[in-house]
Amino acid sequence: MNNTNNIKKIIVDKPLKLDCGKIINNFPIAYETYGSLNDKKDNAILIFHALTGDQFVSGINPITKKDGWWSYAVGPNKAIDTNKYFIICANVIGGCMGSYGPSDIDPKSNKILGTNFPVITINDMVNAQYNLLDFFKIKKLFCVTGGSMGGMQVLQFVANFPDKAKIAIPIACTASHSAQNIAFNELGRQSIMADTNWSNGNYSNEKSNPDKGLSVARMAAHITYLSKNGLQEKFGRKLQERDDLKFSFDADFQIESYLRYQGSVFVDRFDANSYLYITRAMDYFDLIKQYGGNLSKAFTNTKTKFFIISFTSDWLYPTSENKDIVIALNAIGANVGFVEIESDKGHDSFLLNVPKFLETMKNYINASYIKD
Amino acid sequence: MNNTNNIKKIIVDKPLKLDCGKIINNFPIAYETYGSLNDKKDNAILIFHALTGDQFVSGINPITKKDGWWSYAVGPNKAIDTNKYFIICANVIGGCMGSYGPSDIDPKSNKILGTNFPVITINDMVNAQYNLLDFFKIKKLFCVTGGSMGGMQVLQFVANFPDKAKIAIPIACTASHSAQNIAFNELGRQSIMADTNWSNGNYSNEKSNPDKGLSVARMAAHITYLSKNGLQEKFGRKLQERDDLKFSFDADFQIESYLRYQGSVFVDRFDANSYLYITRAMDYFDLIKQYGGNLSKAFTNTKTKFFIISFTSDWLYPTSENKDIVIALNAIGANVGFVEIESDKGHDSFLLNVPKFLETMKNYINASYIKD
Repeated sequence: MNNTNNIKKIIVDKPLKLDCGKIINNFPIAYETYGSLNDKKDNAILIFHALTGDQFVSGINPITKKDGWWSYAVGPNKAIDTNKYFIICANVIGGCMGSYGPSDIDPKSNKILGTNFPVITINDMVNAQYNLLDFFKIKKLFCVTGGSMGGMQVLQFVANFPDKAKIAIPIACTASHSAQNIAFNELGRQSIMADTNWSNGNYSNEKSNPDKGLSVARMAAHITYLSKNGLQEKFGRKLQERDDLKFSFDADFQIESYLRYQGSVFVDRFDANSYLYITRAMDYFDLIKQYGGNLSKAFTNTKTKFFIISFTSDWLYPTSENKDIVIALNAIGANVGFVEIESDKGHDSFLLNVPKFLETMKNYINASYIKD
Repeated sequence: MNNTNNIKKIIVDKPLKLDCGKIINNFPIAYETYGSLNDKKDNAILIFHALTGDQFVSGINPITKKDGWWSYAVGPNKAIDTNKYFIICANVIGGCMGSYGPSDIDPKSNKILGTNFPVITINDMVNAQYNLLDFFKIKKLFCVTGGSMGGMQVLQFVANFPDKAKIAIPIACTASHSAQNIAFNELGRQSIMADTNWSNGNYSNEKSNPDKGLSVARMAAHITYLSKNGLQEKFGRKLQERDDLKFSFDADFQIESYLRYQGSVFVDRFDANSYLYITRAMDYFDLIKQYGGNLSKAFTNTKTKFFIISFTSDWLYPTSENKDIVIALNAIGANVGFVEIESDKGHDSFLLNVPKFLETMKNYINASYIKD
């Protein structure tokens, strides 16, 4: 898997009790930063990444050698301006980019942890990352933000630490994973587990990875990230480097070729067990249930200012689910803004060059920073 | 696979030229009938089945011992009334319920055909089934109908044989498979092919079937058959026979258990290669392209009366795609009715007990039969 020896890490030496009951200690959190923390330490933005993201939000990812996953949004003069703000992003626990995860070596057996890694939650992820505030001696973050699973972490962070962020921008997310969300994640997990190379999670010891299963899981996910109309406009029934159908099972259509490609490149950078653990954490996420069926109660103690962003063509975390968060915040008179951005790019909109989205976020962040 | 020795078959002894260019001859078409053909032979309804259907539309399927796939719609006094009409349904070529398909034995090698079976199309399926009209000496069918891929066959049948059906009822279908449709089918195919037991399609020789891959393919398909809201209402976040989350990868949620079950029962009745071939035929379906980009031209020579039915929550073949067929028919002044049925059961609505749908279809069929 990824060689993470040369990336930044803190070792958390405070015990963390996980939701499953297990206590972990002396575990690594891998992180990256962009920009500079000012003297007042009031310009820090903590970004939470999505399912297959990592700490490398901008610039060139030193492991994959590709652009950081949020390069459209984060950089000099961009929506999240690295000239103005100090950006921190950590790899979630359960991940495979240096933070404590299932591909770590179990010191007892000298084998990878695999499925001996504990099942973690969004709450566990957020509590683990909170240690970065101590590390950087930041009393209060200016902003917490993230899309998709990153947005779930934003919600959980404010619920857990009501006085630790001035503003919060959850994007294209939900307060409670729906049955369809769980279904698609379960499909991905079953696909990985169906691969005989998965070997009950012990594959790295046997030098063979469940690449085929992980690739199919990624293909399934990719379909959900795009809208039906977006797919039709981008691919339609266009053929892949051929004049006519070949009457075979090759990739006749561009959409087939696209999906196969997305699957094949994913397995080079992502660990199959991490995929299992992180999707599980997403499925377990239910902030409404955590607060006794009343989402408003998650936020009664906070003065954090919220700005919720959804996208018209996102059918994975549709506007209606984002609005439920707005409604819960309104019910307690919280300071909350909301915008639904017109886009045909589906759930992926938050990762892509959607000018209206980027401009809206930029304006909100900059205006909020000035007002004190 | 299914033992189809004791089911009804005709052997087609007229050569059929397939779209791929290959000519087949002396091939079996397995079929079932319900009700009686009257003396005038004017009461025959040909039903086309969907991707995983077969000829056993009603009563108990003699192979699976379960209810026929369209038991809600077909039977005495039902929407398609077996007391009044003579119902014929054939297994499509490429299928695994007795018609010529990839699990047939190749007489040359004495092995299953596997991927030596030719890639077939909806057009090939319809042309093959047309032979049943000769067999039953039916000059003109009263009705052709079917949902999903069955609806595509309805459209193709009328285009190919413009004077062979009095009425046509395509349900929840499309005239051209969309990029998202292709994407989900490709996901299923890749899932099957990723299973090492698939063995390039030669699995039956090796006595091991790609059950895991086929099961994942079925899970993916099932998600697309249900609506997001329908899933949420039926399953939501309900737990499967437990009081709380187990912090494991077992099926904690009912939706997970449901999908696993659907996958596991499917592999007992369906052949993985058939799944590849039939999904391929669906993806190749583009009646618009067949008629030079103008769908109306497919129907200019027909006097067949059309009734198009779609469902509000069907996101696989949404109302908009069904309406495109209506628009094409209207453009040539064809006799066409259209109804969008309110239902939260998604694409599966046409298979389920949706009273408004069943009543509407019943009324239309009976009224059309009386008017001559």
